[in-house]
Amino acid sequence: MTSPGSPDPHGVHPAWLPDEAFRPIGSRRTLLRGGGPLAGTVHEEVARACARYGGSVRRQAGGRHDGDGDGGADGGGPYDLVLALTAAGDEGSGEVGIGEECYVVSRRDGVTVVLADSAAGLLYGLFHVVRLGEEAFGAERPAEHHRPAARLRMLDHWDNVAVHPVMGQVERGYAGGSIFWCDGAPRDDLTRVGAYGRLLAACGVNAVAVNNVNVHAAETHLLTDRLGDVAAIADRLRPYGVRVHLSVNFAAPLALGGTATADPLDEDVRAWWAAVTTRVYEAIPDFGGYVVKADSEGQPGPHAYGRDHADGANLLAGALAPFGGVVHWRAFVYDHRQDWRDRSTDRARAAYDHFAPLDGRFRDNVILQVKHGPIDFQVREPVSPVIAAIPRTRVALELQVTQEYTGQQRHVCYLAPMWSEVLGFRPWGPAGPWVADIVADDVGGGGLVGVSNAGDDPYWTGHPLAQANLYAFGRLAWAPSSDPAAILDEWIGLTFPPSAGGSGGNDAAGGDDGRLREALHEIMDDSCGTYERYTAPLGVGFMVRPGHHYGPDVDGYEYTPWGTYHFADRDGVGVDRTRATGTGFTGQYPPPWSEVYESLARCPDELLLFFHHVPYGHVLHDGSTVIQHIYDTRFAGVEEVDRARLRWAELAGLVPAALHARVRELLAEQLRCAEEWRDQVNAYFLRKSGVPDSRGRRIP
Amino acid sequence: MTSPGSPDPHGVHPAWLPDEAFRPIGSRRTLLRGGGPLAGTVHEEVARACARYGGSVRRQAGGRHDGDGDGGADGGGPYDLVLALTAAGDEGSGEVGIGEECYVVSRRDGVTVVLADSAAGLLYGLFHVVRLGEEAFGAERPAEHHRPAARLRMLDHWDNVAVHPVMGQVERGYAGGSIFWCDGAPRDDLTRVGAYGRLLAACGVNAVAVNNVNVHAAETHLLTDRLGDVAAIADRLRPYGVRVHLSVNFAAPLALGGTATADPLDEDVRAWWAAVTTRVYEAIPDFGGYVVKADSEGQPGPHAYGRDHADGANLLAGALAPFGGVVHWRAFVYDHRQDWRDRSTDRARAAYDHFAPLDGRFRDNVILQVKHGPIDFQVREPVSPVIAAIPRTRVALELQVTQEYTGQQRHVCYLAPMWSEVLGFRPWGPAGPWVADIVADDVGGGGLVGVSNAGDDPYWTGHPLAQANLYAFGRLAWAPSSDPAAILDEWIGLTFPPSAGGSGGNDAAGGDDGRLREALHEIMDDSCGTYERYTAPLGVGFMVRPGHHYGPDVDGYEYTPWGTYHFADRDGVGVDRTRATGTGFTGQYPPPWSEVYESLARCPDELLLFFHHVPYGHVLHDGSTVIQHIYDTRFAGVEEVDRARLRWAELAGLVPAALHARVRELLAEQLRCAEEWRDQVNAYFLRKSGVPDSRGRRIP
Repeated sequence: MTSPGSPDPHGVHPAWLPDEAFRPIGSRRTLLRGGGPLAGTVHEEVARACARYGGSVRRQAGGRHDGDGDGGADGGGPYDLVLALTAAGDEGSGEVGIGEECYVVSRRDGVTVVLADSAAGLLYGLFHVVRLGEEAFGAERPAEHHRPAARLRMLDHWDNVAVHPVMGQVERGYAGGSIFWCDGAPRDDLTRVGAYGRLLAACGVNAVAVNNVNVHAAETHLLTDRLGDVAAIADRLRPYGVRVHLSVNFAAPLALGGTATADPLDEDVRAWWAAVTTRVYEAIPDFGGYVVKADSEGQPGPHAYGRDHADGANLLAGALAPFGGVVHWRAFVYDHRQDWRDRSTDRARAAYDHFAPLDGRFRDNVILQVKHGPIDFQVREPVSPVIAAIPRTRVALELQVTQEYTGQQRHVCYLAPMWSEVLGFRPWGPAGPWVADIVADDVGGGGLVGVSNAGDDPYWTGHPLAQANLYAFGRLAWAPSSDPAAILDEWIGLTFPPSAGGSGGNDAAGGDDGRLREALHEIMDDSCGTYERYTAPLGVGFMVRPGHHYGPDVDGYEYTPWGTYHFADRDGVGVDRTRATGTGFTGQYPPPWSEVYESLARCPDELLLFFHHVPYGHVLHDGSTVIQHIYDTRFAGVEEVDRARLRWAELAGLVPAALHARVRELLAEQLRCAEEWRDQVNAYFLRKSGVPDSRGRRIP
Repeated sequence: MTSPGSPDPHGVHPAWLPDEAFRPIGSRRTLLRGGGPLAGTVHEEVARACARYGGSVRRQAGGRHDGDGDGGADGGGPYDLVLALTAAGDEGSGEVGIGEECYVVSRRDGVTVVLADSAAGLLYGLFHVVRLGEEAFGAERPAEHHRPAARLRMLDHWDNVAVHPVMGQVERGYAGGSIFWCDGAPRDDLTRVGAYGRLLAACGVNAVAVNNVNVHAAETHLLTDRLGDVAAIADRLRPYGVRVHLSVNFAAPLALGGTATADPLDEDVRAWWAAVTTRVYEAIPDFGGYVVKADSEGQPGPHAYGRDHADGANLLAGALAPFGGVVHWRAFVYDHRQDWRDRSTDRARAAYDHFAPLDGRFRDNVILQVKHGPIDFQVREPVSPVIAAIPRTRVALELQVTQEYTGQQRHVCYLAPMWSEVLGFRPWGPAGPWVADIVADDVGGGGLVGVSNAGDDPYWTGHPLAQANLYAFGRLAWAPSSDPAAILDEWIGLTFPPSAGGSGGNDAAGGDDGRLREALHEIMDDSCGTYERYTAPLGVGFMVRPGHHYGPDVDGYEYTPWGTYHFADRDGVGVDRTRATGTGFTGQYPPPWSEVYESLARCPDELLLFFHHVPYGHVLHDGSTVIQHIYDTRFAGVEEVDRARLRWAELAGLVPAALHARVRELLAEQLRCAEEWRDQVNAYFLRKSGVPDSRGRRIP
């Protein structure tokens, strides 16, 4: 088990690719038809499974498949599974191509067949068969055509090369160190990068940005003299169809190149980026592109030269275009030195105000990367109005898989339901497209980007159950309309196969398996809702401790320059973002949302305090007052955590002991922290409002 | 100007010892009678002044003085100044000794005479003549006997040897790096340590603890294998009569010695400390002793072994006693992991509760080092009740010269008036002794300890005007009943001698000198009051930003484990520490204070919220309500800062330009920060109370 991509070189948890998941394939006879490195990866996967479970695999590197499962003239058949590249394009057969990264899976006459036009499609098809498990070899199944919704399904790593004095090795990382970098250098052993690529391929991710969007001094050099470090990572990810992207410093020509400026309209600067980018592609021919955080939170950008974001993005896009690369230009731009006394400035407005006027000015290979909400990854925000505001610009939706504001991988918080809600939001109302349609559009879409939650932790994600978020991100990027509970179910089945439990012996009956599955759904399905219930209420956001963002501090950001306020006083709470009396942010939405959010009566309760400042006695749609809702939900959230804790305790013996112990400890911390949230939020609002809990519970 | 102790080896500001201060001595004829190293320092000081200003000095190393100024049989007279060791003790003359460190100064028949029993006294006498300036050589003056009130006048440096990842090189240091340590090692060039010793001698300080009371890994080794580093510092300070003390790790025997325990009653541990301390005195014969922070904020201590603070302190005292050393054992012990929901625990009570029961159990060479207030160096606290609670224990008063909670040397805050108030407090009422009497008592007193505000900043203290705090600490330690304004006047005269101004030419008239003096008094005399007016009101304390403690955050510590709360709600604010209805802290004081503080009517306004929780409408002794007082004083404080800023602007040309510019920039920052304090505190209380400002000023 020491070959490249081996899932457990150093006691690392296999996540959703344990050996057992390959038993159905590994115990059968497989024919693989197709050449090239990615097909080699497919072969290696099957061969390893067969070595373990007694099956066989035969590879015909040159051949392409004719559609049946008998092995044709190859002899040695029949096979249970045929994985084959099509003849599409080769033979002028006239058939419509399956498509890049796509595959068709079917079962007929006892043979399961996966066809793809490309080896990448074959690899995704293989993992589809893994997900199906024994079912893949059961009843006949008609041909199903699988294609990824979005072409770009990317994870951004906020990993620093050099340990940052404040932010550490991984900014907002809660899973140990970086799998790429350690103390200023690439890791000596990049085995784990290969294992990571394998996990990503198995959930559908095809791109990784290998360094933090805040590009510090050491990281700036990755673009030039330390490019070899990036190439080494690319070499490890390439066998799994994952491309590398690089976060770059907009001022790199100044910092590295000795130009007199980083002005995007300067010829020297343009020439510098062109030359540097050419060298990047010489070293990494399948390089994906650049990620840029410019003029944001102190990062350099085009504004210093009187240029705008379009000028800046197009500069890099021009350098990348000859090679097919893209620029991910982040829309996370706002005034982080706001005067809290200035009530007219609204951070929620900032991205729209900056970027909507630039629509149509960006080159085709610029992708505007937009956080899902207008503020910053809070557990409850409306969908960003930017997504609907720039129809002539490619948009990527940015989701935060790392749990900066959602419990930092010490709390169970399965994020897929929240992401699913965002993807399913229709910016122009019921008749219009979903967000998913916009970002996944073949021409105008920029795909999905997640900020990775993975690190060098043995469980990859710190909290073992946080693996489900990484998995679900990939699956939703591939198929945004998937049901979050179904994705979770898939993850459970793969990650906790029946024989993986501590006590064993439950393969046949499935009783333990069913108990585990049921319990995990109970613990995880609505865990994001639970988190919301014990933290900041009704969409108001940002009641976290400044700096590290873990745990409550109701006034922590209230008098700061960060633009994140709740304006609670003795009479009420919330941010008036209406056009009538507030900041006018509601006007950034098209109808019907511009009207729905504007209206106190129609605004959804869960977003009430995001859009309106209301008295504590304001009555919600369920008949409760705002203040009583605050109390009730805080108490409910804590009770839910406690139930999860007890539920998990019952699972001892059904999962590996070490994993059980870690989750048990984390649930104890989650309960402590949830109680802290409950008590601080409730005490804060009781002290301010003077309204007692109608049920007389203790508020300290 | 490169001899040891030179005040400006690298462009360092001379503070209160500019060359000009030595002009009156340096332009005259001096006779020095006395031998030994400290007398050598006196000689060097006078000789350097004479080299600059044309006077002369003659030294008679062996002789002792007979009391007149004609030089006796020495020839070469007459002299303007005679500095002489007495014959006391030598010749059985029957006269009463002047006393250790003491001196007598007089002027008769045109000769100014300083007599002392010891060379240390002679050195202090020399600096007395420097302070007098030309006046020392004017009219006749009868003999004045000067003796330090406290024998121990110590500065604690919270300097780390290795840079601490959170706290840096100097914990709570606002004046650059450490003058002793740099990046894990002693400074290559310790010249500045000598210059520091000279400044300390000139204001009366005679002891320095060279490392932080939080003793981390590297610093633990100073006691043993890195003792040479401490000895090198001692060598630089010895010529100025300043002894070194060392902060030690109570668990040092475990960490360094390989003992199985650090139990203070264990024989191996006792033997370890005895042996180690013997080696310390072999290296540093005049070593002062140990400083210990034990069982406090995570530092190890005797509690781990079921022993108490007396057991712990006596262990070290036993090791030091044979050599005349002392233990400074800090009384700053409290639960820093308090549950904020627990209203019964009161951090203010902690030191008394820990130490009062131990009174009488400490060895004679143990000094309990007590912070001046019961909490932690807030700008307004009552005097700690511990000082009166342990009559059979030696007590040192700990003051914070470094401005952790008083503007961090970015704000002008002359602390001497606050210290003077503490020293003048009479714990048993008008008929009883002062705090100064208790801590400076020859037998039972432990002296004064200040946490130093000096670093490697060119001005020593970051803010040039913060030098006055260092100077005033020394002067108050020597003479606690001194008037703070007189000390400031002294400091102004020394630091800004007439010829030191930028424009010069004002020596004769003194007009510019008078303007500068008047302005500095206006800016500084009540600057601590100003600071109090724009920060936390009425003694409530701790409204600073958590962690770094700079700038406001009204609720910053409200829901934390640190025990520092104000309990503001929509109805009122303050901490009920009465016996009747609160934590009972008032009962830790003897009468009359136990009654005064208990009584809402008699409690001084400035401490009201320290002792009582009152409604916002509570009427103060001046007729204002609490809420209106909060508004009024916040506005007043800011206006005072603005006046100081404008006043300083007028002084351009009267002080060196660089110094003027630095103070001007700092005053701009102080004004910004004061406005931030005003607006946050006012907005917070307006939002909570709903009571508008009666004068209708803008509260954001």
